[in-house]
Amino acid sequence: MNAKIQGLLDKKIAFVGSESEGKPYIKAVIITNREGNDTFYFDSNHDSLRAEHWKRNPNACLYFYGTPIYRGVMLSGTMEIIDDLEIKKQQWKRSKQSIYKAGVTDPDYCIMKFTATKGRYYSMYETEDFDISEL
Amino acid sequence: MNAKIQGLLDKKIAFVGSESEGKPYIKAVIITNREGNDTFYFDSNHDSLRAEHWKRNPNACLYFYGTPIYRGVMLSGTMEIIDDLEIKKQQWKRSKQSIYKAGVTDPDYCIMKFTATKGRYYSMYETEDFDISEL
Repeated sequence: MNAKIQGLLDKKIAFVGSESEGKPYIKAVIITNREGNDTFYFDSNHDSLRAEHWKRNPNACLYFYGTPIYRGVMLSGTMEIIDDLEIKKQQWKRSKQSIYKAGVTDPDYCIMKFTATKGRYYSMYETEDFDISEL
Repeated sequence: MNAKIQGLLDKKIAFVGSESEGKPYIKAVIITNREGNDTFYFDSNHDSLRAEHWKRNPNACLYFYGTPIYRGVMLSGTMEIIDDLEIKKQQWKRSKQSIYKAGVTDPDYCIMKFTATKGRYYSMYETEDFDISEL
């Protein structure tokens, strides 16, 4: 199962969950950086709906999906909004200029840092919780 | 935008969100039936984690994802657990036998019915709420 989970965690597109007023929200994000199996980064905006959610409630999940039909990993954890210019500079790429017009110092540009505390693996016939530190 | 949304709603794989104790949860599901633009069905189990969530809190969302990078629709609404044998018989397929060993009367087999109340469209450069009745 470990190899299957690792394969899913390598995916560049993930689905991120937030909560607001008892309602769940999902959107797709592009994973821009990763540290180990528990820390994932993606770009966002300070004025986004999700940033508002996580400022109020940092609980989050990240779901990675793969074929054959179907296989998935959900990581549960928390989201932190990174506004440190040094980290932003480290993660900046020229291609981001089209989204954040003012460049790396664009006041709306922020980085989301997701830290997972536990995982759950899904396949058509199997669902299993797993310990991230044991991957 | 309507054509893009319609294209996404036709997808057979969707990502469903639930909430429990202030935490968001995501999993992939196979859409088995659909009525219009606001009602979607998928199979589940009475003893599943998600069924437990929706029994306590029916708030749910359904997210459809498509390429080119990236395009998505999130529908917000509520989830209902359908246990009516007539509806189950209508939606039963022989291929389900491998999952629900006892067939259509398998006590664990249930159908999830998601009813959307509003929608939000995402693309790389655009995020827009929309009225489902106007699609």
